[in-house]
Amino acid sequence: MNYSKKMKTKFIDIEAGSLISIIHEKTAKELGLFHLERVELFNPKNKKKIVTVIDTTDSMVKEKEIGLFKDVKKALGLRKKTEIIVTPVSVPESVKYIKKKMDGNSLNEKEIKKIVEDITNNSLSQIEASAFVSAVYIHGFDSEETIAMTNALVAGGKKLNLKKKFVVDKHSIGGINGRATMIVVPIITSNGLFMPKTSSKSITSAAGTADAMEVLAPVELSINKIKSITEKIGGVIAWGGGLNLAPGDDKIITIEHPLNLDPQGQVIASVMAKKVSVGAKFLVIDIPVGLYTKVKTKETGETMAKKFLEVSKKMGIKTEVLLTDATKANGPAFGAALEAKYAMEILEGKVYDNLAEKSCQLAGALFELTGKSKKGKGYEKARKTLESGKALEKMKEIIKAQGGKTFSSEKIKLSSKKIEVKSEKKGKIERIDLKELKEIARTAGAPTDKKAGLLLKVEEDDEIRKGQILFEIHGENSRKLEIAKERAIQNSPIKLGEVLIEKIS
Amino acid sequence: MNYSKKMKTKFIDIEAGSLISIIHEKTAKELGLFHLERVELFNPKNKKKIVTVIDTTDSMVKEKEIGLFKDVKKALGLRKKTEIIVTPVSVPESVKYIKKKMDGNSLNEKEIKKIVEDITNNSLSQIEASAFVSAVYIHGFDSEETIAMTNALVAGGKKLNLKKKFVVDKHSIGGINGRATMIVVPIITSNGLFMPKTSSKSITSAAGTADAMEVLAPVELSINKIKSITEKIGGVIAWGGGLNLAPGDDKIITIEHPLNLDPQGQVIASVMAKKVSVGAKFLVIDIPVGLYTKVKTKETGETMAKKFLEVSKKMGIKTEVLLTDATKANGPAFGAALEAKYAMEILEGKVYDNLAEKSCQLAGALFELTGKSKKGKGYEKARKTLESGKALEKMKEIIKAQGGKTFSSEKIKLSSKKIEVKSEKKGKIERIDLKELKEIARTAGAPTDKKAGLLLKVEEDDEIRKGQILFEIHGENSRKLEIAKERAIQNSPIKLGEVLIEKIS
Repeated sequence: MNYSKKMKTKFIDIEAGSLISIIHEKTAKELGLFHLERVELFNPKNKKKIVTVIDTTDSMVKEKEIGLFKDVKKALGLRKKTEIIVTPVSVPESVKYIKKKMDGNSLNEKEIKKIVEDITNNSLSQIEASAFVSAVYIHGFDSEETIAMTNALVAGGKKLNLKKKFVVDKHSIGGINGRATMIVVPIITSNGLFMPKTSSKSITSAAGTADAMEVLAPVELSINKIKSITEKIGGVIAWGGGLNLAPGDDKIITIEHPLNLDPQGQVIASVMAKKVSVGAKFLVIDIPVGLYTKVKTKETGETMAKKFLEVSKKMGIKTEVLLTDATKANGPAFGAALEAKYAMEILEGKVYDNLAEKSCQLAGALFELTGKSKKGKGYEKARKTLESGKALEKMKEIIKAQGGKTFSSEKIKLSSKKIEVKSEKKGKIERIDLKELKEIARTAGAPTDKKAGLLLKVEEDDEIRKGQILFEIHGENSRKLEIAKERAIQNSPIKLGEVLIEKIS
Repeated sequence: MNYSKKMKTKFIDIEAGSLISIIHEKTAKELGLFHLERVELFNPKNKKKIVTVIDTTDSMVKEKEIGLFKDVKKALGLRKKTEIIVTPVSVPESVKYIKKKMDGNSLNEKEIKKIVEDITNNSLSQIEASAFVSAVYIHGFDSEETIAMTNALVAGGKKLNLKKKFVVDKHSIGGINGRATMIVVPIITSNGLFMPKTSSKSITSAAGTADAMEVLAPVELSINKIKSITEKIGGVIAWGGGLNLAPGDDKIITIEHPLNLDPQGQVIASVMAKKVSVGAKFLVIDIPVGLYTKVKTKETGETMAKKFLEVSKKMGIKTEVLLTDATKANGPAFGAALEAKYAMEILEGKVYDNLAEKSCQLAGALFELTGKSKKGKGYEKARKTLESGKALEKMKEIIKAQGGKTFSSEKIKLSSKKIEVKSEKKGKIERIDLKELKEIARTAGAPTDKKAGLLLKVEEDDEIRKGQILFEIHGENSRKLEIAKERAIQNSPIKLGEVLIEKIS
């Protein structure tokens, strides 16, 4: 019974991060629309249908025209001007379910599915989606809801169907730095396991795995490419962002991010949905526990682990969760190029530290889960694979298959500019604030500037002298480097223990 | 320590309902910005400073330019191109307080003040503001928080300082139709009380008081005009929207609206803030109780009333709350012109019904609160004022003072087009769905089309014959009228009681 209108398209070259179209003020009035209300756009030629938010203008488009922002043009599959059908949309049914959750009630599978669909196809506004995420954060999800959410996220996305038995995956929850994935993937895929690893780019850290891998090889691969490389050589390390594996999840994450919210049920559903979508049958989950990570205590980690195992079982994925010590940095590097270089150095056998150790633990767990090793023997197998250089060779194969040309740590170009931050006094290092180090790296330009970052030169408990270098800040932009240095001096992320507490005389 | 940039302005003729500016993709990268992140814009010429959300483009603006949407241009006080200072903004401190509320903690006065400030000046995104409103809806406000919110809303806005002793106000919470305000204001202001009434335009109803009053006279008055008219003749009925009396509240309402949320604490603070801003010293609050209004039961109404009285006391406003019966319509009219006409007919003494009765009750309460009547004698005084024609004369004065030219019900122009909806069978009317009637009026074009609406021709318990007219649908747009009629037939808002329940043989 809604009022529809055929309108001519006009392309507006703006990227807004959400679907927006513009109509003339008079047309808005005729359709009874206000800004921030929504319309459904239907392209009769290819039958594509999307929902956008409405802005208004009195000059940019004519009365019979509709202006389409970039993402809208793309979503409607338009190349040239055409005519589309515009229909005002009333409040979606899922708003009722969001209110139900806000009122403290559990949602059933159908309701959760509808909410995810409406978030995915843009029928819910940011205001409404935020209310949903907030309600889930406040009231939590029970097991059924988490499972329903996982299924709903999977249902809305594409799938990677590998014709292999041993498809495995690995996931870390909210660590600070270090690229274990770049070490785990070559270790396990050189031993008959298959891992089509899709990783994220950085949102709040100095680099994501996809950012670091991109220093060595292209990471924006198509689903078909990921499939064919994995089937051929065992693994890839790709960016998961453009793949539409769980588009609803991608949208929910953009809501969670500004609030820094991580409703546990939603996080679990989000992780598990992506694992189901890539067809993983075995999974190891790393929960770093420490002052600077998402999970601060062992107890919280254990509760989370139990929920992961519960959902995994329902999804038919054999899973092991490892709580790992994250009180110290995972290696000294923060930032894409520095972290990539360091991971390569581990593969090359030049260093062996807690990051290498953790990677072997995670790879070992996968060997045991898949039966490639006997119980208790997985770690050993992983370590041997690393030390023998077999993992390095596999990594080179992966880099080559993805189209990369950087095969060794020495070939990675670092920034030509860097600043050394030195200690102003002597003493023993008591605490290193990893979160602040990450922020300094970001101030220097990470993650946009891949060469920007920070390299730690000391560790906790080190005895240092006055003037000793604590860390280097890297980056291509001199002004940003200076600002990062100022920040480092002001916030002094490395605390020395005071031997002397008080003088009494 | 943030990275600032001087940029040339370019005006973009788009109204988005929120503050948005556009920069070139390359500039975004240089500033480390993503879409939906925020920048502070500073106009060095007039020292105005605002925060906007960022969209990106690769052609609409040059690298050194920043495109400003209409509202941004206005907020920065710009008429012609100039240079402004653009600085990326980090996450505002108030996000921490929002999370604190989400975690179930109470907020102190300082924290609530900061949240309201950041919502008002656009530092908080819709996502963040929605999370705040959701948290308040779920966890509620205690008395201190409600009072702090009231103060914060008042602090951010303008004030109306009348040099009069008997400044009064009236407020109804979520009724469906009927314009008691248009009857109460002339009754009480013709008896020595002063009422600078600011009303809203419709959001979800067929008409707001400002919409109906606008049929008789202009309602977009300046604060000074409201003040001078009130001081001279006792009262006005103006639109409160453009006055900046509590701009934070206006923004919070735009968040609550799509979710149809009405967190009680927030509603109370919202109402009380506007009353404090207009300088009311006496206040009567009408809480309509019924199936179709916000407050469904007497008990809920009583709890709400107690909270209103508590906050009123703190604010130094002498208040009385009236729970009124809203199971029936407040008169037969839905829609601006129809409701205005009906209110004038009451003032003209042509009808006296439950809307007139309620208006006299509310006016009477104000007479008693201010001491203009003895206890128990207010209603009588109100009724006498109405019946004597004194209220009608005052209303004409008000219309004239606001610049209006329509002084009688007969001069109000109704739609030239209308559709009569008739009963398909005979019977007794058991239930009239007021919410559905309102929706039919909106489908016909209300509130944008002032002549669109619905006029009830029957009442509950009426015995009707087959073919009898149930209601008229009015509206200027034939197609919308047809759609409204279809809706009326499909949803049949008027239910007849079946005399015969079952036939047994």
